[in-house]
Order: sequence, then structure tokens, then C-alpha cells
Amino acid sequence: MKLPRLEEQALIDAIRREFRGPKTGLILGIGDDAAVVKISGEKIFITKDLLIEDVHFLFRFHPPKLLGRKSLNVNLSDLAAMGASPKYALLGLGLPKDTGTGWIREFFSGFKSAAKEFGVSLVGGDITRARKITVSVTILGEGKDAIRRDGARQGHHVFVSGSLGDAREGLVLMRKGVRLGSDKRQDRMLRAFLDPQPQVKLGMELARLKLASAMIDTSDGLSIDLGHLCEESGCGAEVYLEKIPVSAELKALQRKARDFALNGGEDYQLLFTVPEEKMDLLSSLKRRYALTPIGKIISGLGIVVVDSRNRRKKLQPKPWHHF
Amino acid sequence: MKLPRLEEQALIDAIRREFRGPKTGLILGIGDDAAVVKISGEKIFITKDLLIEDVHFLFRFHPPKLLGRKSLNVNLSDLAAMGASPKYALLGLGLPKDTGTGWIREFFSGFKSAAKEFGVSLVGGDITRARKITVSVTILGEGKDAIRRDGARQGHHVFVSGSLGDAREGLVLMRKGVRLGSDKRQDRMLRAFLDPQPQVKLGMELARLKLASAMIDTSDGLSIDLGHLCEESGCGAEVYLEKIPVSAELKALQRKARDFALNGGEDYQLLFTVPEEKMDLLSSLKRRYALTPIGKIISGLGIVVVDSRNRRKKLQPKPWHHF
Repeated sequence: MKLPRLEEQALIDAIRREFRGPKTGLILGIGDDAAVVKISGEKIFITKDLLIEDVHFLFRFHPPKLLGRKSLNVNLSDLAAMGASPKYALLGLGLPKDTGTGWIREFFSGFKSAAKEFGVSLVGGDITRARKITVSVTILGEGKDAIRRDGARQGHHVFVSGSLGDAREGLVLMRKGVRLGSDKRQDRMLRAFLDPQPQVKLGMELARLKLASAMIDTSDGLSIDLGHLCEESGCGAEVYLEKIPVSAELKALQRKARDFALNGGEDYQLLFTVPEEKMDLLSSLKRRYALTPIGKIISGLGIVVVDSRNRRKKLQPKPWHHF
Repeated sequence: MKLPRLEEQALIDAIRREFRGPKTGLILGIGDDAAVVKISGEKIFITKDLLIEDVHFLFRFHPPKLLGRKSLNVNLSDLAAMGASPKYALLGLGLPKDTGTGWIREFFSGFKSAAKEFGVSLVGGDITRARKITVSVTILGEGKDAIRRDGARQGHHVFVSGSLGDAREGLVLMRKGVRLGSDKRQDRMLRAFLDPQPQVKLGMELARLKLASAMIDTSDGLSIDLGHLCEESGCGAEVYLEKIPVSAELKALQRKARDFALNGGEDYQLLFTVPEEKMDLLSSLKRRYALTPIGKIISGLGIVVVDSRNRRKKLQPKPWHHF
């Protein structure tokens, strides 16, 4: 079930060397049938995601180092949306026969840089042949209380971190053939798509301070992700169109900036709700993070967008596909 | 990054219903950003594997129900090889657009039946589009002391459970177009490949009784897997050709039975070493499991096969590819 054995073994040895180092809680890492870890807290948070060539990324456009980072970071974003602290990663990698060792090395160097950034240890995984590059990451984390999707209640404020829509514009630019390093504004958009930053620290702080009643990350786009949060919480939301954070770069580059912010995916920001009585406490965080109040939770179901003239319009979730 | 949202949501809802039920230790299951579990013991064992269409299985030959079972069971085999007790599973599924709902239902029903058999709860995962069916399973388990690959020492006896080579013959038959239900002997071979049984209980008993000094499962074939065990332990092994357990069915069907037993993969039996002083204790297990002593650990490196006339020959690991 493997690459030609020698190749696989050489790769595993190289990976083991790459990821060597003292690791608290790691009992047995890469190389045996399973990894063994020890997690101090009692609750273990687990998430996994698949990234597949031609579905989630294009080989010729995505620099391997950034793809390595993104493979880990999209999973870290899921843990961030629970308020958990990431600890261990497992990496399953399916590689076509003709994948160059340079590509693989770059991919791992990116994966490693993101792992280092967030204190995550790679403890195991699986390498196999595949027709298309297939990346499967599993993350284990720890935390006290999970911030679930179902705790939003009428009157809670809706917040989002960072700005929305940049990743969608990055994808548009990439498909036009624009590469990193050409223009500062375009670079920011491209980076949002190719190298998104998971909001791990923000998620952990929101959990520690018990500020968020519900939380999700914006991987599928505001309209869909807020829809999920509302559905799970059994409520609706109104969103103030003018309040949605759109970067100056996106406004300058894209006529449909607002549509991108509403329906573009892959921003990996945190979308969360805050009860009125906790708004004071939130202000301490607002000094360190870009957090924008964009709406309120209402009774009933569905999401309503309110424009500057107070016109209300139902928001339909618009799924989007990359490729 | 997903299937058309409605489809994915419908699938997740269906899966959630399918896998409903009381689950000890499960704090938050399918449907949020991450699963949250509680594991009573302190050590957590984690393993993951990728199964990819046309690399690990052929869509037209592998009944979806058995593929669902196998996806879980090959991972359980990795945990068995550590002596750990499986608890939780996460399933990442990449599906081509044209995958029928009947196929998906069957796959899940198989996955569920294996999960039930071994007391495993499905707690989360990811569904996405893919060009080829891609199955990524992560398992978490618990245990006290891991049975590692590196504890074999000179003089330890080498044991293997069950019989070897059947799965390879099953693959040969399958490729010839032989289907399940045609002939009893052939069925046994086909089942060995299509629906392998992980030796979970045996692994746990070996761990509980502290009988095995090193252990691995035979996923890649005896020559390769024993090679790994020896390499990690820094020793060699001699294997008595006549002792290698070959089923009567395989002998009857296949001229190259012994080659299949030495080099065929995917039997998912347990291969382990036992120190001399523990051989008495092992006899209690031998009443309940088919366990065959096939050789001894020797000093030096490499594996030597000894035939009935006491001729010694170096065993070269032969990797094999399915498709």
C-alpha cells in the first residue's frame, strides 16, 4: 500500500530528521505503527481536513512551501474556531509518481514553518502513491471548554476578525496568472489565498475569557458559515452591509468587493457571537486584534442583510468552488 | 472547499443520524469544527492511513460495504500492532461528482459495521470533492504500554498470527474477474483481500500480558515488515521456511503459495517477538489464537530464510504494488 518501499523509507527518515527535537508530551513519534502522545488536560480536540490537487489547489500555481503551510493552517483554523490549543499533527500524503523531491522538500519546509509558529509537533502519518497530490492532516489539541457553534442567542453581537473577501480576490488573480512579488496590493490578496493565517491565538483568548457564545471559522464564506452558526443555534442574524470589513486593497482592486466579502471563502477568520454583558471585556481584545461588529443575532431563522438606507434583504448562501 | 454545500450538509446529517447513540467519553461529535473527546487513560495512540482509488482499491471490484470496513480495519490493524485499544475514528472522504448515493450509503454501512464490531465511535471528519475516491481515516486509541517495533533482541522467538499470503491470492483472483460467492476456497482468498480482519483483541492481550518485545502488522508483507522490525531493533532474524503458516486453500490454489506468504502484503496479521522466558505464558493465548513460531531473532542485520534441508538464503524485501 505504499510508494516503492525504499523511497518511502527514505522520505520517512528525512521527515523524522526534519521534525526532531524535544517535544513535551510526545511518547512515541514518527516511524512506528501509531503515535503515542500524552495530553495534560482531559479534553482532546481533533480535526481533520483533506486538500486535493485540482479541487483545493492547483499544482502549477501554489508554491509548495505555501501549500505545506496552508495544509496545516486550515486545520489549525478549525481548532481556533473551538478555542483550543493545537498540540500534535499527523500528515497523510498521497504523491503522484513524478513528484519531484524538490517539491516534497519545499512542502515539508512550509509545513514545518507553520508547525513551529504554532508549537505543533508532527507525530506521524502515512505516505502513499496517488494520481493527484492528496494532503490529509489531522490535528489534536487541548482546551477546557469548547466554543461550539450552537450557543448564539437573540441579541448577541456578531463579530468577525480581520477582513473578508481577500482570499477570493487572491484566487481570481492567481487564475489570471498574477504571481507573488509583482504588486504590493495584489500580493496581499494572493497571500490571503495561498498562505492564510489561522487565528489560533485569538480563538484561545476568546475561550480563556469566555467571551464568545458561538464561533466558527470563515472557510466557506460569511453567508454559509454564519448560516451554519445560526442553524446550529436555532436562530437568525442581521448583518449590516456597511460594517463588513473589506480591505482597502480589495476595494481598490475589485468592483465586486462586497460580494466577495459576503460569499468568498477561505479567509479563515473567526466569526463569533458575544452576549451584551461581555462587550466591555471584549474591548481589551479589540486593542490587539482587528475585530469588527457586523450584526446581531435575531429570533427566527435566516440571515438578513441591512444596507445603509436600512433596506433589508434575505441573504442566500452561495457556495463557491475553486476549480 | 467542499461538495456543493447542500449535498455535503445532507450527507453529514445522514452520517450523524447513522452514528448516533451513547458514546462514553465523547464530548462533542460530528458537526462542529473539531471533535472533542475524553480518554480515561493518559496515553493516546493515534494512527492514520490513506486509501486511494486505483492505488489501494479498484472501484469496480471492491464492494463499497467491504471498502468501508477495510478503511477502518487497516487503521485498527496499526493500533493492534501497538497493543492499543481503539476508541474514536475520524473519516475524511473525497468523492468524485458522479459517486452514487447508493455507493456512499453502502460504504458507510460497512464502516459502521466494523466500528460497531470494535467499539469505535465516529466523531468527525471532512467530506470533499475529489477526482478519485479518497478515504482518509484517523483512529485514536488508549493503552498503557505501547508495543514498539524496536524491542526485539537476539534469541527472541518470532511469531505470526493467522496465515500469510491469502490476501495476495485474493488480489490475483479479483484481477482475474473472480467474484465473491463463486467458490468457497476462492471466497476465503477474496475476503482476505477485500475484508481483512484486524487482530485488535490479540494485540491488546499481548500488551496486557506483556508478552511481545516488539510487534508490527503484516501490511506490506513478511519480508518487508519483519525487515522493519529488525531494522528498528538493530538485529536480524532467521525464518524457517517450512514453518510459515500457509492456508490449505492457498496451497491448493496457488503454485507460488510460499512466495505469496513471504512477500504478499495486506494480510494484516500480527508479527511479534517473544523472549524465551515468556514462552510458557504465551501457551495460554495459543489455545485461542492461531499463533505460529516462524523463526528467531539473531545478531547482525538482515533476514535469513532457512529451508527444510537447513540451507540458508538471504531474504530480500520485495515491495509490491496492487495496481
